[in-house]
Amino acid sequence: MPDTAIANQFDEVPTFDDILHAADRLRGWATETPLLEYAALNELVGGRVLLKAESLQRTGSFKFRGAFNRIVQLPEAQRKNGVVAFSSGNHAQGVAAAAAILNLPAVIVMPRDAPKIKVRNTKAYGAEVILYDRLSDSREEIGDRICRERGATLVRPYDDGGIIAGQGTCGLEIAHQAEALGARPDTLLVCCGGGGLTAGCAIALERTLPGATVMTVEPIDYDDTRRSLEAGQILRNDASSASICDALLAPQPGSLTFAANKSLVSGGLAVADQEVKAAMAYAFRVLKLVLEPGGAVCLAAVLAGKIDCAGRTVALTLSGGNVDPDLYRTVLQDQA
Amino acid sequence: MPDTAIANQFDEVPTFDDILHAADRLRGWATETPLLEYAALNELVGGRVLLKAESLQRTGSFKFRGAFNRIVQLPEAQRKNGVVAFSSGNHAQGVAAAAAILNLPAVIVMPRDAPKIKVRNTKAYGAEVILYDRLSDSREEIGDRICRERGATLVRPYDDGGIIAGQGTCGLEIAHQAEALGARPDTLLVCCGGGGLTAGCAIALERTLPGATVMTVEPIDYDDTRRSLEAGQILRNDASSASICDALLAPQPGSLTFAANKSLVSGGLAVADQEVKAAMAYAFRVLKLVLEPGGAVCLAAVLAGKIDCAGRTVALTLSGGNVDPDLYRTVLQDQA
Repeated sequence: MPDTAIANQFDEVPTFDDILHAADRLRGWATETPLLEYAALNELVGGRVLLKAESLQRTGSFKFRGAFNRIVQLPEAQRKNGVVAFSSGNHAQGVAAAAAILNLPAVIVMPRDAPKIKVRNTKAYGAEVILYDRLSDSREEIGDRICRERGATLVRPYDDGGIIAGQGTCGLEIAHQAEALGARPDTLLVCCGGGGLTAGCAIALERTLPGATVMTVEPIDYDDTRRSLEAGQILRNDASSASICDALLAPQPGSLTFAANKSLVSGGLAVADQEVKAAMAYAFRVLKLVLEPGGAVCLAAVLAGKIDCAGRTVALTLSGGNVDPDLYRTVLQDQA
Repeated sequence: MPDTAIANQFDEVPTFDDILHAADRLRGWATETPLLEYAALNELVGGRVLLKAESLQRTGSFKFRGAFNRIVQLPEAQRKNGVVAFSSGNHAQGVAAAAAILNLPAVIVMPRDAPKIKVRNTKAYGAEVILYDRLSDSREEIGDRICRERGATLVRPYDDGGIIAGQGTCGLEIAHQAEALGARPDTLLVCCGGGGLTAGCAIALERTLPGATVMTVEPIDYDDTRRSLEAGQILRNDASSASICDALLAPQPGSLTFAANKSLVSGGLAVADQEVKAAMAYAFRVLKLVLEPGGAVCLAAVLAGKIDCAGRTVALTLSGGNVDPDLYRTVLQDQA
């Protein structure tokens, strides 16, 4: 049964070779986003900070990498029935854009309170959007029903080998681009929700930058990966938690992502909403970049001094830039 | 008299070799800013648009290139007396940052109504800032007086061979980076004030992308270069003109820059303030980049359909990102 074999393949942690294959599939489709360096930021921290600007990626976040790498591997027989995803927005856009390129239908189940820009963009890529209520509806039930009714394939946001391998191409690029800049990062900070980008980058760096430390950065009340790494087992976030970082609100680490991260990731940092807002304002004023809250957590950790960069070379991900202008306007006003 | 010989050298249009030498001087100091490409923008215009993001340059605009290249060539005897510049802000920051790196004093004469972020940043680089009133004071007289009193060297914003050669390194990078992307631009659009960036890039492209068309983009009421190119002689802007593009308000083309541009530049485009604001909002929402008004004029020309990009490869400069957050907040609100 070839379909089952393929399904199983994605139930495993990807290898370094899987990431190389993903890079081949993504060539010409994903953007090789720049690894940016700013004299002003280096001077501020007394070290070298290299910023992987995935905010400049197709669809405005790294999520396109994993989505395209996963969907392009769908067997022909499954393609016509399309794909289903649930997401607050960045995975939604990644799946919608990849499906549009590959010419297959996509249904995205999004919370009614997702950022407007993410809902609008997802629809603009041609996907059918079904909104649900976070408190009263189950997105899993809605997704399951659509998969059953239409024979569609569920594209999970992070707990999938094809997704993790796709996100790992971001790590490959960081290693190559740092070398081109004459830099060797000793640490990589990764914006962490479910842990897919972290796992992919950690697997890529184990081979391309051996010895480098990989750390996650999460919102303070959504630091499930930090606590899980410390405890050596998967821990959930408190259901009553809240954060401005809509992209990083996964309830707990994925099984696959945690299986990879527990051996490859050294630990995690956590930042407060106020530190994230300060980082967004700094990105606007000094870096001239638009970052969404979840895309600014690593920068926030550096600016808030949660990691000492003095005399070191620290690479970090700026994972996305899909933010409602109204929120940015408020942030800029508050941080004036 | 070596000093006179050096002074004369900067009174000539630079050669392609001067730009190569400038690139050597700038290596390790200026940022090789990325040449960005977005699937969404390409699809919108039906062609390929390559964006040279000088907004990500040290000091937030391309001006650092020329300033550093000019100041680093000051003879030892002149260095201790420092440099003087007048500028609404981007040249000011470029000169201030270059002087700080080279450890010599800088005085910057700025209009009292310059964007606050530009005044603040110029001071932060350690320069002495003297504010003048656009209507009642003569910035030239103030600058001359300081040069006489202190024996300082005036660093002109564009009409100087060292400045033009420095800005030309931007053109060199565009040619190399386009090649790395597998693209060959048939047209380059350049944000144009006094014409220094245009002249430098045109000289660089004549050799590196022979046959490519270079065009300027200016604000509608500051289209002196467009009109001068058409007339074959230097024409001034109306003194009563106004534009949101504070970086592009030169009264007329420079003598050196026009001497270069009249033979190398095909013509000019002009954009309205409203088109510039729409481009700034597009940059925020789709490109995830912060652009100042003057840095957004080429993008505005493309988005407003002033140039047909269908089936073509058009490179353009995003020349700066030094914009007051309050202005951006207003633009985002108006363009919502």
